[in-house]
Amino acid sequence: MPIVSKKGSLMPQSPIRKLVPYAEKAQKAGKTIYHLNIGQPDIKTPKIALDAVKNNSLEILAYSRSEGSETYRQKIADYYAKNDIHVKHDDIIVTTGGSEALLFAFGSIMDVDDEVIIPEPFYANYNGFSTSSGVTIVPVVSKIDDNFALPPIEEFEKLITPKTKAILICNPGNPTGYLYSKEEIKKLAAIVKKHDLFLIADEVYREFTYDGLEHYSILQVEGLEENAIVIDSVSKRYSMCGARIGCLVSKNKTLIQTALKFAQARLSPPTFAQIASEAALETPQSYFDAVITEYVDRRNTLISELQKIDGVKVGTPKGAFYCIAELPVKNTDRFAQWLLEDFDVNGETIMVAPAAGFYSTPGVGLNQVRIAYVLNKESLIKSVQILKEALKVYKD
Amino acid sequence: MPIVSKKGSLMPQSPIRKLVPYAEKAQKAGKTIYHLNIGQPDIKTPKIALDAVKNNSLEILAYSRSEGSETYRQKIADYYAKNDIHVKHDDIIVTTGGSEALLFAFGSIMDVDDEVIIPEPFYANYNGFSTSSGVTIVPVVSKIDDNFALPPIEEFEKLITPKTKAILICNPGNPTGYLYSKEEIKKLAAIVKKHDLFLIADEVYREFTYDGLEHYSILQVEGLEENAIVIDSVSKRYSMCGARIGCLVSKNKTLIQTALKFAQARLSPPTFAQIASEAALETPQSYFDAVITEYVDRRNTLISELQKIDGVKVGTPKGAFYCIAELPVKNTDRFAQWLLEDFDVNGETIMVAPAAGFYSTPGVGLNQVRIAYVLNKESLIKSVQILKEALKVYKD
Ligand SMILES: Cc1ncc(COP(=O)(O)O)c(C=O)c1O
Ligand SMILES: Cc1ncc(COP(=O)(O)O)c(C=O)c1O
Repeated sequence: MPIVSKKGSLMPQSPIRKLVPYAEKAQKAGKTIYHLNIGQPDIKTPKIALDAVKNNSLEILAYSRSEGSETYRQKIADYYAKNDIHVKHDDIIVTTGGSEALLFAFGSIMDVDDEVIIPEPFYANYNGFSTSSGVTIVPVVSKIDDNFALPPIEEFEKLITPKTKAILICNPGNPTGYLYSKEEIKKLAAIVKKHDLFLIADEVYREFTYDGLEHYSILQVEGLEENAIVIDSVSKRYSMCGARIGCLVSKNKTLIQTALKFAQARLSPPTFAQIASEAALETPQSYFDAVITEYVDRRNTLISELQKIDGVKVGTPKGAFYCIAELPVKNTDRFAQWLLEDFDVNGETIMVAPAAGFYSTPGVGLNQVRIAYVLNKESLIKSVQILKEALKVYKD
Repeated sequence: MPIVSKKGSLMPQSPIRKLVPYAEKAQKAGKTIYHLNIGQPDIKTPKIALDAVKNNSLEILAYSRSEGSETYRQKIADYYAKNDIHVKHDDIIVTTGGSEALLFAFGSIMDVDDEVIIPEPFYANYNGFSTSSGVTIVPVVSKIDDNFALPPIEEFEKLITPKTKAILICNPGNPTGYLYSKEEIKKLAAIVKKHDLFLIADEVYREFTYDGLEHYSILQVEGLEENAIVIDSVSKRYSMCGARIGCLVSKNKTLIQTALKFAQARLSPPTFAQIASEAALETPQSYFDAVITEYVDRRNTLISELQKIDGVKVGTPKGAFYCIAELPVKNTDRFAQWLLEDFDVNGETIMVAPAAGFYSTPGVGLNQVRIAYVLNKESLIKSVQILKEALKVYKD
């Protein structure tokens, strides 16, 4: 019998996926589950984007250009300009989600056994993309007690080897909610320039910053043009995760030409989704204002409710819509499973993402979970109530 | 300055892409170009598929399941059953085009430096997927004089090494138009079983078979369940290349579980496109009958017109919508460029795909081009007329 590849057998499962069978069993048993475990917002997609697809008049659903249509890329450049990021349409390759932009970036700059340094905890699928690219993730631990701020830059420097090709950050962070300051970004810029590395910034949560803080993009750093690669996506910005449109942005021409070859091999990004995404760029500011107000309200509620529970430690997220909470349990993998299998309050329970999957250092984050505030305030309050009751009776 | 990966620098450009700047220049100069170079049909997408998207009532464009929605996969299984291919919905992973299915298959079964044997000429992007996966393509030459039939099975056997993980065929073939017979498929089945290899069949042109011939799928071979992996796509079947929906099909559970991990890392295939593709399954048989009639008519016209030109050799394609033609020139890369740059008949010229890019053996196919019959009959007749005039005056 033929066998699968080593790479294939090493591909990680997402930390949430392992719980899905237990969630399905709980649902079948009639339990209501509050899903705090996913990054799928409950916010409505802008009508203007949905309408554009409904009103399309295509008769042949043809391939688009591999790099995305020129008009759409031009409009993306205009969007960036409004965010004080100055790029041209040909610095942009439209991708099938931020996911594909990550794959293109990894493939374009790293060969098998090359290394990328990433502050952990990080977006769990970076593990999948690195495994499928044969690349090694070298983690730098960021700490809940520092609110997951950038670790001292010496920690990065210590880890740089001849195999290091890039530093990857997520800003604002999934799963931490941390927003890097201009100073932190400049420190990273200096170190990648010093060592001739790429700096990849996953900025898919750019719009989601709170408390009056502003996002500072690596594309705004002067002199970093050859090093900076931005990963972007419409998924969260317009709550249109199912579109599967993102982009890769860099002023480094060789990098863009290289990534374009990967893009050409897979022919084109999805056409309907590009129509929706192009229209989404006309979304009025009022939409974002309302969404941000909603998320801030949810965050405030979630964090203050969590802080009321004895033994629970939680940072103050300044962006995205996640937080990491430390719980008074030994192993949140087991705890999360137990919540689904063996616990409920009046037939209701919660599903959380065990945080170990967001770390690549073994044994770290075992007592942490990621909570996404993609539910309305009432559900969040109820969810924390359930967590509180659960912690009272749970035995490790 | 940071540099791109070795893999990235090795990524091939598609044989057509190199010509695009010349085509753009010709167009700017006012020339009309008949595009014989692309696999983008001019056939209309079934209205039922386009309407399903127009009439969708989604308010949140959410991620779908990574493996595709269950209802859609169930309906795909029904479609296969009608084609006498018997699989279950969980033998299917919905992908972002056949392209992604190829990437998942390569990743799931091959590690860096592993080998896949492919009869050449083959679909040029197999080169891109193998380079990005770090895999080596080992070609077996099939010959225009044999109409590109399966090379003797001993030729394959000679090439099998401990690194060989799979044989990949495209059936019906792009760029050859060759349709493998049941006997040929059975020979391949026997050899992969004997050597514990996977047999990957790219069957995206399944519907396009002519002269009363029937497609025989590798999924129909009894006893091949653990070895067979089918790559499929809605792109050509329903002329909806821009949807970006395909699938990977196998009864080998470990293979499907492995591919699923790659699918999970990229979250989900596009949602609008799944709506269109699910509806497309209801396309009436009359649509296909009309399309096949049209393609047969075009093929007959194209081949008979080509055969009238002195020094031109062409096979008889039995499927898909391509043919390989051998021309009385030394290097079709230069000839194709010259057609765009330096030639026209009353302001009109043609664009063809030089065939060298479809071979991986260096120096083979230099005097061949691929011609796609995705234009109407009148345009095809005109195109061949232009080719004939061009060959009269062209000097190598
Ligand atoms: C940090 C981060 N990057 C990238 C992605 C990929 O998103 P998509 O492929 O939908 O654009 C996600 C999705 O959750 C994410 O959280
Ligand atoms: C033989 C073959 N396989 C796969 C593909 C990929 O098509 P898609 O990704 O649009 O499904 C093509 C497209 O031309 C093809 O010709």
